[in-house]
Amino acid sequence: MEEKPLILITNDDSVKAPGIRALISYIRPFGRVIVVAPDRPQSGTAHAVTIAHPLRLELIVKETDYEEYSCNGTPADCVKLAFKIVMRRRPDFLFSGINHGNNASINIVYSGTMAAVLEGALAGVPSVGFSLNNYSLNANFKPSEKYIKTIAADVIKNGLPLGVCLNVNIPDIPAEEIKGIKVCRQAEGTWEEDFDEREDPHGQPYYWMKGVYVMTGNGEDTDQWAMEHGYIAVVPVQFDLTANHALETLKNRF
Amino acid sequence: MEEKPLILITNDDSVKAPGIRALISYIRPFGRVIVVAPDRPQSGTAHAVTIAHPLRLELIVKETDYEEYSCNGTPADCVKLAFKIVMRRRPDFLFSGINHGNNASINIVYSGTMAAVLEGALAGVPSVGFSLNNYSLNANFKPSEKYIKTIAADVIKNGLPLGVCLNVNIPDIPAEEIKGIKVCRQAEGTWEEDFDEREDPHGQPYYWMKGVYVMTGNGEDTDQWAMEHGYIAVVPVQFDLTANHALETLKNRF
Repeated sequence: MEEKPLILITNDDSVKAPGIRALISYIRPFGRVIVVAPDRPQSGTAHAVTIAHPLRLELIVKETDYEEYSCNGTPADCVKLAFKIVMRRRPDFLFSGINHGNNASINIVYSGTMAAVLEGALAGVPSVGFSLNNYSLNANFKPSEKYIKTIAADVIKNGLPLGVCLNVNIPDIPAEEIKGIKVCRQAEGTWEEDFDEREDPHGQPYYWMKGVYVMTGNGEDTDQWAMEHGYIAVVPVQFDLTANHALETLKNRF
Repeated sequence: MEEKPLILITNDDSVKAPGIRALISYIRPFGRVIVVAPDRPQSGTAHAVTIAHPLRLELIVKETDYEEYSCNGTPADCVKLAFKIVMRRRPDFLFSGINHGNNASINIVYSGTMAAVLEGALAGVPSVGFSLNNYSLNANFKPSEKYIKTIAADVIKNGLPLGVCLNVNIPDIPAEEIKGIKVCRQAEGTWEEDFDEREDPHGQPYYWMKGVYVMTGNGEDTDQWAMEHGYIAVVPVQFDLTANHALETLKNRF
């Protein structure tokens, strides 16, 4: 008898977000699912970990082949606690999302959803993050269901190269307009910050961060381009940040 | 008359940490220096940005060619605010640190010091992060002074390739034992988390994160190896996380 794979699901928008509820419903048929997700929104927390205060876990649901916990930490904390405390082992697969918002291009650097995925990959677990290009809580995840299931089934069947995880970004368009899945590289881009400067009732200044994403390189082989042109963009991601092309030049300088 | 370069200095251990005080003293002779650093320790914040509450800046010191501000945000917030509010332009160079602790190998993923450096690189600013392999507030930064000045002078004279920043890790040994500067790639490694499980006075469990760094690949061309063998390890770092070697395999799957 083949044993069901053990699957961790997490996100950064909190355990209550519609995006993770959709992902749970798509992934549950594939195995024994354990959800460990933040108890409140953690967008923009990137790969932060909590070392200055203690972490807590709350069991929310326990059913056959399904458990759900909320945690007061970051997405990376959730993954670490899931492995060490909840599961007492590494899961067979990790899926994160569905994020409410775009994690293509440089957004990956700020993304808690993708930090959880990288944390899985660091531990050798085949891991995939899903994000929909719509920041609203009322976003429609339904058109992506078929593609998320296709990608999850493929990863569960074939695994991923060691040290490689997937960043999947989904266009916010009707199902019939989605052209298919496209494997891409990370687009070049940047956030142009424009702070909203205000004054508090005591006359002291304060600043709200607001940013505009600016794409600086949008070749047809990039995730941002693919998503904007109706494709589900899949980028293989690694955590080795070495700029190999610069090694030789720098060796001549130092 | 040549104008002095405008230099931003930041860190993640707070504006009061001995590491940033040492870095400021080494870098001030090179130009007009503006410090914008967190008002409290932010280790482990990685590339987190603050979007859910407003940011504040406090001017602490203003002298000829020198200003110092503290900020209630993360290191990435500090860099964004420095560019947009304090300087109203991008600086010519960015230096971050000196971090109290090792940022070699996979530590870069969790590092606020290096997130600030990546944030600089994302904006096209030649940026360098310095870290000493000693977590104590009483660490001795003096042996690294000569090397930090050498690296800073080189970057100020020659710049860095666009999109490339430097992660510099310094061994905690006496000056006479330092063998020199070595350009390396990021070592493979991982943190083996081992949570400290406790019970609060109400009988509820809570968890303190504690980790042990485990090196999984320690070739002589890696930063962790170099640092452990008496070298100042310099890794050129990029923010494109695409696992290029996996692109073709995955294109055949999707």
